[in-house]
Amino acid sequence: MDKTNLSVVLHSQGDLRLEHRPIPEPGPNEVLLQMHSVGICGSDVHYWQHGRIGDFVVKKPMVLGHEASGRVVKVGSAVTHLKPGDRVAVEPGVPRDMDEFFKSGRYNLSPTIFFCATPPDDGNLCRYYKHSANFCYKLPDNVTFEEGALIEPLSVGIHACRRAGVSLGSTVMICGAGPIGLVCLLVAKAMGASQVVITDLSSERLAMAKELGADFPQEVKREDTAEQLAKKVEELLGAQPHVTIECTGVQSSVQTAIYATRSGGVVVLVGMGAEMTTVPLLNAAIREVDIRGVFRYCNTWPMAIAMLASKKVNVKPLVTHRFPLEQAVQAFETTRQGLGVKVMLKCDENDQSP
Amino acid sequence: MDKTNLSVVLHSQGDLRLEHRPIPEPGPNEVLLQMHSVGICGSDVHYWQHGRIGDFVVKKPMVLGHEASGRVVKVGSAVTHLKPGDRVAVEPGVPRDMDEFFKSGRYNLSPTIFFCATPPDDGNLCRYYKHSANFCYKLPDNVTFEEGALIEPLSVGIHACRRAGVSLGSTVMICGAGPIGLVCLLVAKAMGASQVVITDLSSERLAMAKELGADFPQEVKREDTAEQLAKKVEELLGAQPHVTIECTGVQSSVQTAIYATRSGGVVVLVGMGAEMTTVPLLNAAIREVDIRGVFRYCNTWPMAIAMLASKKVNVKPLVTHRFPLEQAVQAFETTRQGLGVKVMLKCDENDQSP
Amino acid sequence: MDKTNLSVVLHSQGDLRLEHRPIPEPGPNEVLLQMHSVGICGSDVHYWQHGRIGDFVVKKPMVLGHEASGRVVKVGSAVTHLKPGDRVAVEPGVPRDMDEFFKSGRYNLSPTIFFCATPPDDGNLCRYYKHSANFCYKLPDNVTFEEGALIEPLSVGIHACRRAGVSLGSTVMICGAGPIGLVCLLVAKAMGASQVVITDLSSERLAMAKELGADFPQEVKREDTAEQLAKKVEELLGAQPHVTIECTGVQSSVQTAIYATRSGGVVVLVGMGAEMTTVPLLNAAIREVDIRGVFRYCNTWPMAIAMLASKKVNVKPLVTHRFPLEQAVQAFETTRQGLGVKVMLKCDENDQSP
Amino acid sequence: MDKTNLSVVLHSQGDLRLEHRPIPEPGPNEVLLQMHSVGICGSDVHYWQHGRIGDFVVKKPMVLGHEASGRVVKVGSAVTHLKPGDRVAVEPGVPRDMDEFFKSGRYNLSPTIFFCATPPDDGNLCRYYKHSANFCYKLPDNVTFEEGALIEPLSVGIHACRRAGVSLGSTVMICGAGPIGLVCLLVAKAMGASQVVITDLSSERLAMAKELGADFPQEVKREDTAEQLAKKVEELLGAQPHVTIECTGVQSSVQTAIYATRSGGVVVLVGMGAEMTTVPLLNAAIREVDIRGVFRYCNTWPMAIAMLASKKVNVKPLVTHRFPLEQAVQAFETTRQGLGVKVMLKCDENDQSP
Repeated sequence: MDKTNLSVVLHSQGDLRLEHRPIPEPGPNEVLLQMHSVGICGSDVHYWQHGRIGDFVVKKPMVLGHEASGRVVKVGSAVTHLKPGDRVAVEPGVPRDMDEFFKSGRYNLSPTIFFCATPPDDGNLCRYYKHSANFCYKLPDNVTFEEGALIEPLSVGIHACRRAGVSLGSTVMICGAGPIGLVCLLVAKAMGASQVVITDLSSERLAMAKELGADFPQEVKREDTAEQLAKKVEELLGAQPHVTIECTGVQSSVQTAIYATRSGGVVVLVGMGAEMTTVPLLNAAIREVDIRGVFRYCNTWPMAIAMLASKKVNVKPLVTHRFPLEQAVQAFETTRQGLGVKVMLKCDENDQSP
Repeated sequence: MDKTNLSVVLHSQGDLRLEHRPIPEPGPNEVLLQMHSVGICGSDVHYWQHGRIGDFVVKKPMVLGHEASGRVVKVGSAVTHLKPGDRVAVEPGVPRDMDEFFKSGRYNLSPTIFFCATPPDDGNLCRYYKHSANFCYKLPDNVTFEEGALIEPLSVGIHACRRAGVSLGSTVMICGAGPIGLVCLLVAKAMGASQVVITDLSSERLAMAKELGADFPQEVKREDTAEQLAKKVEELLGAQPHVTIECTGVQSSVQTAIYATRSGGVVVLVGMGAEMTTVPLLNAAIREVDIRGVFRYCNTWPMAIAMLASKKVNVKPLVTHRFPLEQAVQAFETTRQGLGVKVMLKCDENDQSP
Repeated sequence: MDKTNLSVVLHSQGDLRLEHRPIPEPGPNEVLLQMHSVGICGSDVHYWQHGRIGDFVVKKPMVLGHEASGRVVKVGSAVTHLKPGDRVAVEPGVPRDMDEFFKSGRYNLSPTIFFCATPPDDGNLCRYYKHSANFCYKLPDNVTFEEGALIEPLSVGIHACRRAGVSLGSTVMICGAGPIGLVCLLVAKAMGASQVVITDLSSERLAMAKELGADFPQEVKREDTAEQLAKKVEELLGAQPHVTIECTGVQSSVQTAIYATRSGGVVVLVGMGAEMTTVPLLNAAIREVDIRGVFRYCNTWPMAIAMLASKKVNVKPLVTHRFPLEQAVQAFETTRQGLGVKVMLKCDENDQSP
Repeated sequence: MDKTNLSVVLHSQGDLRLEHRPIPEPGPNEVLLQMHSVGICGSDVHYWQHGRIGDFVVKKPMVLGHEASGRVVKVGSAVTHLKPGDRVAVEPGVPRDMDEFFKSGRYNLSPTIFFCATPPDDGNLCRYYKHSANFCYKLPDNVTFEEGALIEPLSVGIHACRRAGVSLGSTVMICGAGPIGLVCLLVAKAMGASQVVITDLSSERLAMAKELGADFPQEVKREDTAEQLAKKVEELLGAQPHVTIECTGVQSSVQTAIYATRSGGVVVLVGMGAEMTTVPLLNAAIREVDIRGVFRYCNTWPMAIAMLASKKVNVKPLVTHRFPLEQAVQAFETTRQGLGVKVMLKCDENDQSP
């Protein structure tokens, strides 16, 4: 193990630096990881650009990054299920308290949870990082490090589709064909959705969605009303979709989601919009269209690894750019400009393979 | 059986008449009922005053009434589970088609459902009325006709509490202490809710709620903000409620419902408000507070009868006024003025008992 | 329409005849179908060979067949969603009563349900057959008649996998690689199961299972104990399966199913065994392994059609033999001998295509 | 704090001793409790008499007791929600690993869980005991220490009724009127069950059940067949029960449970019987009567405290005997002889109140 720990640190809004930090020592239930691949998420860029997301404010320097995989180099004294050399994917949220949410299987809602790169908790965009061993999941040989890192965004899709109750034969509308819309598409298909409509303003994004399996990529025009778009979706599918997954956070899109969904169905809100939103709540209520949000995810890594190992889902096309860790700033700039889908940082100097 | 069928008929907005109609003949799967007790619902009054509710417009004369019980006087040829003399409660919604909603147990969502006193379907505020035998439920001897009629509003409470997932030890907030808020209170308590906060502008309604078992009747002032009220509810209960049942339809109350509910909990929308509502959807989404509407009810009568027979719930105090059928107009006027809780019309000339 | 209605009629145990019956007249809510493809089920053969299944006894001549598709030739006066010429798949169970089971979405449990070829109800292995229009489902152009007929066995798999809670990333054990085990395999995979072990005594059946997508075809030997086999399955998967679907009804296999399943998982019983079974119930109970039976299916046709239309599942390889209706006896003999997987009877003289 | 820690220690089968042990020191996430009331459970007596339960064998001295409440006397450095002086109920099972079961809210199934008085883990029948602070729950002022201790058996009832899906209007059969049958009765009623049949061989136990709210106490005779008894239950209720909770573990009673339960209903197995059981599995399967076991409980303490504080359930009559800790052997002997319902040991020399 070398003696430096190059890390991507956000000091304050706009002030992103590459700096050397000490290599941490794992506690009894922790493992030390040599990081391999870490994806850049929209939230990383948002912290960089704005210094905050909602109530989470960057008040002191924080390492970025939370879509990660690496190799175990040291294990704490109480760790039994991992050993040095194991390749693992990292679940970035680790509950600190055995509170009511954790005990009932919804630890993502625990208010005291540790979460990589949500202030003030450090992320893992660095050479060496320690993490709770119980939240590191061994990768099978046929799953690459990059696939491992992509489990994080994939988990958003899994959690959203689970909350939506997507199942065999479901028809699904997805609003927004960005990275999150695309993972929702992949997961919905893997869960047996028979037909997926995906909407976006951008025909390029829709082309990507089509490649990844969308049945009906539907371009949205700014002048379309919510009701017109809902009608269009019904026509495409021959019936209203059972489920709508809203990934834009835009008010008109949430309205479309409600109008479009079949009575007794579900709208899942993944995209984060403004504090207040004006929606046709009466329409949803009297047709018993449930509205459910998602906050991150829980209990998704084992399932995601099973999916990847059994080739149920192919996330590899999502990686469109790669940079060595040393070029983190260029990588962030690439994401900021909205180029491609997913930018991956390669943290291991000696192994920059996918 | 006498030969007249005095009926309360709404001809058009504001034109309510008592008139004689023919006694209907039951089909093979129907029963003819001599009506005994029929409650007046807010929707009956609304049709009378406005001639419509949303898309449902009174275009031709319609008998009002859908909270009803009566006695079987004649059974169709295919009916086996009922016989003349049986006392029954009437479920007013009868699916016409075995469509996807009916087949999957959510027949309340069937778009072609027959529903008493929803235009153009006639209700049962009359002397004699025929109905699908499968939607007439025999009352045990220890359940009165009026209790039987009250199963209809009670069903709204059952359906709402079920959709909310109220269970043993749940803490519940109910917004609005009108008739529907009160039945939600009764049902939540019967399902094991440990503590119920109920809010209203009227201290009189809250006094009634307290009598019926509310732990914390909380008066609302128009100047309270949604967040202040939510905070107040949390203080009363010592924690945010698991479930909030919104029975007013008022925008600020829906906002309060969202802010007040515990992460991972449920807001149920029972009250019907404006077409569009502005709500803190982001707050609900990132705390995974689900928003679920209710449309009428399904599969509630057998459970309601079981509750009433076993004295799990006491609905009798809800009846505050009684009128003979002949005085239907006064009865409607009483409800219109918001006097008391529930006005009951007594349709059987020879038996005006509860 | 020709004037004869050649039908395959079981008169009593062992007495199977081809005979001409009148063409029925559809009622107001019915359609008359010209049958196209009807599969032979093990139960058809069982009635032929034994004259009964459990309490269901053939006491008078009964038309066999319940895996069917055909073309609408006439519609009843109240039918709106179908018209002559429509190609449809037939759901053989039609509830007669709007009882508690039907109202709550589990109409398969309704004790008075009509069911094709369960005595005394006639099946549809004939030229012309009338059926409730609500239980005939229009086939899209890209779904063949034979696929339509195979929706019936496929529905057993859908219902079993639903009751099992198979979902994305599930690991599944299926006991028995006969036609039902195979459809469970297809459905489990389509629902996102990551790995499926399937067991059988016959290596030929396992070869077919492997072709259809089984990850681990595992030959069972009669001398294997239930615990040994359970251990073997755990080794194959690297962990106990989340779900086991038992399709043999054999006692030792049910025991294996219990031992094999992960704590908190589910064993679904599809195979029908003896009246009484000796099982390690304590082992199941203290590990909270739920045991759930399935009785036929409900609410599966629309989902199955969606699956077939979107090519989520390929059932075509299941059809290994075809006979014209006139050769029904040879067809039954073929099934009796256990040759191939599914034998299909072609009922339309002018169109014997798949 | 005095310096001795009198403890009830089982050295080996039949060798129960009162001895002085050191007072433990709480770790950072633990609290030290001065024990107040600890109930004796059948399993404590079973370990004493047989030295084992299934695979759990007493191989070294073990403190007994796991139905407990006490007062916090010291808190670890990381504990924030409790302080010295707080009265708490103790949940005896504390997961050691954040494994798949814990993460998904079913920590009772975690194979590495710590559990009081299950070998080799020490229980809390002693003067001073340390425990994970997250599994100590503060008692409101209006809940006594003994009620706090009774949350443990009550939790078995809560978990069983939850797994059974008991809800408003459910009809329930409970097999066995011992302590566990009685807590199931109390909980089922609190969840809204409309009618409960409870069966037992002993008329005394049934008398107690009647006092606690059972609608139909039904004496069982050894010569009754399972089917006869099932028929009798159907007659009492007017229909088969939705749910049966089997608390005896006796084979014939499990058979009765299956025959008695309504199609589509649930049998919950609480009683622990022999390794292998012969049951009418076919009957259960084709009527979709689910069979679900329970292993201890999870997520029950907060709900139980809410129930007790709101007086939804009265467990006080269950305590029929009390002994000071010094008389533990007499107390165990009383339980062994099956006298009364629940024997409570009073561990605080200076406060022997309920």
